[in-house]
Amino acid sequence: MNIPSNDPSLRSWIRTPKDSDFPIQNIPFGIASWNGEPPVPATRIGDTVIDLSILADVGLLDDLGLPREAFLAPQLNDLMVHGKQATRALRQRLSELFQEDNATVRDDNALREDALLPLDQVTLHLPVQVGDYTDFYSSREHATNVGSMFRDPANALLPNWLHLPVGYHGRASSLIPSGIPIHRPMGQTRPDTQAAPVFGPTKQLDLELEVGFFTFDGKPLGQRISTAETDDHIFGLVLFNDWSARDIQSWEYVPLGPFLAKNFASSMSAWVVTLDALEPFRIPGPVQDPEPLTYLRTAQPGAFDIHLEAALAPEGSAPSTICKSNFKYLYWSMAQQLAHHTVNGCNVRCGDLMASGTISGPTPDSYGSMLELTWRGTKPLTLSNGEERKFIADGDTVILRGHAEKDGVRIGFGILSTKVLPAIPFA
Amino acid sequence: MNIPSNDPSLRSWIRTPKDSDFPIQNIPFGIASWNGEPPVPATRIGDTVIDLSILADVGLLDDLGLPREAFLAPQLNDLMVHGKQATRALRQRLSELFQEDNATVRDDNALREDALLPLDQVTLHLPVQVGDYTDFYSSREHATNVGSMFRDPANALLPNWLHLPVGYHGRASSLIPSGIPIHRPMGQTRPDTQAAPVFGPTKQLDLELEVGFFTFDGKPLGQRISTAETDDHIFGLVLFNDWSARDIQSWEYVPLGPFLAKNFASSMSAWVVTLDALEPFRIPGPVQDPEPLTYLRTAQPGAFDIHLEAALAPEGSAPSTICKSNFKYLYWSMAQQLAHHTVNGCNVRCGDLMASGTISGPTPDSYGSMLELTWRGTKPLTLSNGEERKFIADGDTVILRGHAEKDGVRIGFGILSTKVLPAIPFA
Repeated sequence: MNIPSNDPSLRSWIRTPKDSDFPIQNIPFGIASWNGEPPVPATRIGDTVIDLSILADVGLLDDLGLPREAFLAPQLNDLMVHGKQATRALRQRLSELFQEDNATVRDDNALREDALLPLDQVTLHLPVQVGDYTDFYSSREHATNVGSMFRDPANALLPNWLHLPVGYHGRASSLIPSGIPIHRPMGQTRPDTQAAPVFGPTKQLDLELEVGFFTFDGKPLGQRISTAETDDHIFGLVLFNDWSARDIQSWEYVPLGPFLAKNFASSMSAWVVTLDALEPFRIPGPVQDPEPLTYLRTAQPGAFDIHLEAALAPEGSAPSTICKSNFKYLYWSMAQQLAHHTVNGCNVRCGDLMASGTISGPTPDSYGSMLELTWRGTKPLTLSNGEERKFIADGDTVILRGHAEKDGVRIGFGILSTKVLPAIPFA
Repeated sequence: MNIPSNDPSLRSWIRTPKDSDFPIQNIPFGIASWNGEPPVPATRIGDTVIDLSILADVGLLDDLGLPREAFLAPQLNDLMVHGKQATRALRQRLSELFQEDNATVRDDNALREDALLPLDQVTLHLPVQVGDYTDFYSSREHATNVGSMFRDPANALLPNWLHLPVGYHGRASSLIPSGIPIHRPMGQTRPDTQAAPVFGPTKQLDLELEVGFFTFDGKPLGQRISTAETDDHIFGLVLFNDWSARDIQSWEYVPLGPFLAKNFASSMSAWVVTLDALEPFRIPGPVQDPEPLTYLRTAQPGAFDIHLEAALAPEGSAPSTICKSNFKYLYWSMAQQLAHHTVNGCNVRCGDLMASGTISGPTPDSYGSMLELTWRGTKPLTLSNGEERKFIADGDTVILRGHAEKDGVRIGFGILSTKVLPAIPFA
């Protein structure tokens, strides 16, 4: 798909540092506030945040099918509810306004000073109010690693795995944006299977390197979204860290799946990178054998070549990169996930979030969780400051990054950074 | 707890049919509309629906700590967000206004005609906009039956079951009120484990007889609600039918739990019966052995003696009662469910829904699902019209009812009725 705002030759009059994730070809969406003002929709070019409420207020975003009130809302849902065509037109308008030869904002000193803010003066918020959050389990390498560790290396994948994108419902209330710290969760575990379970802080706190996507409004309850229609229902993507407490998980998860091991927090990056901005990086995904059932077949390539990495910074120390993976390793595509999710008539609403599951690659340094990187704690990682880690320690900050690059254009997500604080003791 | 509005001696000037679920001691809350007007909060006495927006508009509900706008909202959340004391005061005010000796509304012809409507002229809507919906698995008899059928009768309960209330996250988008039909879902199943999976309408559509409760706002992310605090966070209860497709479920559910087998629809009754109204029916629940960990222990009895039943009406035929159960059979109480759900710091918000899981009793006629009633289809039920059922057929209507009775006062939920339509074919 040839989208004008993706043209590699475009340049902005806003300075964009070398290797920025946010050239004018990106135009992501987020929610920002500063000076104690209410949070409003924003975009970002380089390290400059652009207040869309100011641009809307002076009429520069009229005639796009988006009411001005939507630019005053504290979440992107009020824009997203107008659908793909309207948000696509908004991104194109923003691209035009900030191209180097467009004087409208550039030469209006008062407007420019009102609408443009340095990133470091801005607070970024959860971009989307999520109705339902679904987490898939779509990396074959991740599912194979987990199956090998907990079941049988010779039969690591369960029988259903190659036939459908396994997924489950997660918790929407505990979704948090980058920068918000989490407390180590407490919970029930049974370290000694011959003894009674015990209660205390998790000893196996883990990250999960994921990518999530937000939906536009779907169809009414009972109807399906086909794989050919899914792109019209996907707004954009974020980096996603599905925090997990492995010891709680292994005790609680039979037979209904993970619950308290996951629902204490899941973190997402602040900027939603649109599916449109990522179109140039679309590539074929892994070969699917056996061929999926008809409703899961797709006509166009469904993977995206997006480099992903995870780093861990102990308190007071520099970060060590612990994993380099890629979104392209995902076996089941976003199109297949969304088609599967609705094939039974389940309805999807504006602002729903679907995450990929941990994205592990084929090599041990590409595994997207501590569980896999340390092989259940049997091979501790050594960090650049000399410390070892089996899982995440109190005081550690986990940092996820992701970007795609082609034809000299780099489209990225910025960072997703979350610090782990000690468990809150009982009062 | 002695709550004035529960006094068995109270009588209303609104006629209440014998055996009504809605005497003046109930005062449930719902969302109703008529004559094409927008839906608003309402209560019900006998077969009369009372429009709370009209009472608020003339000032009868002022001074309760509830803004008038909350009485114009299309869901109860705007009232619930003001918490237990405010909604308790509202219920008490309504009790006073409709007691037989109170002339305020009774003798005001114009007001009475505006605010009171016959049930059959009213449309009832989903009462609460649900943020997160959690389903527990808290009936020991149900878990034992399922474990016996699918695993091993000698070890029917999994090791964690007696130590914690097993639960999982469900889908909020597909929650529907009584009266809305559902379509039979289609999905992937694998009837022959030696062959490839197939796609088509479920052949094992099932009901689950449950009770759900709605929460008030909880605590911030990271904090816990103790069992001593849970009552302050529970608004009220509804009957709940967690529709299930057993053949889809058994294929998809490992290792992350039920997904498409459940998320096509879950139905709830229209009237939220407050926890306050159910206080007289509080009784001790089943003895818990082994004793739960400290955070799951409770000081007061946690069960409620509420008769539950399910009926099935084939198209054009009278309903046959297929199950008589009781909410008191639940092993894990609502207080334990809510304390467990938040012990890891998971936050609960106003309008979250937590359902019990299928409530089965000790005898075969008290099992709360077709799966158990027909023992996985091996013992079909014979209905009053002579037809047999292993699972739910197209055209069937499933009807759930529930009520508690003591000292001549009957507090009930009315009916939860859902008709099953054929699967929607692919276009």
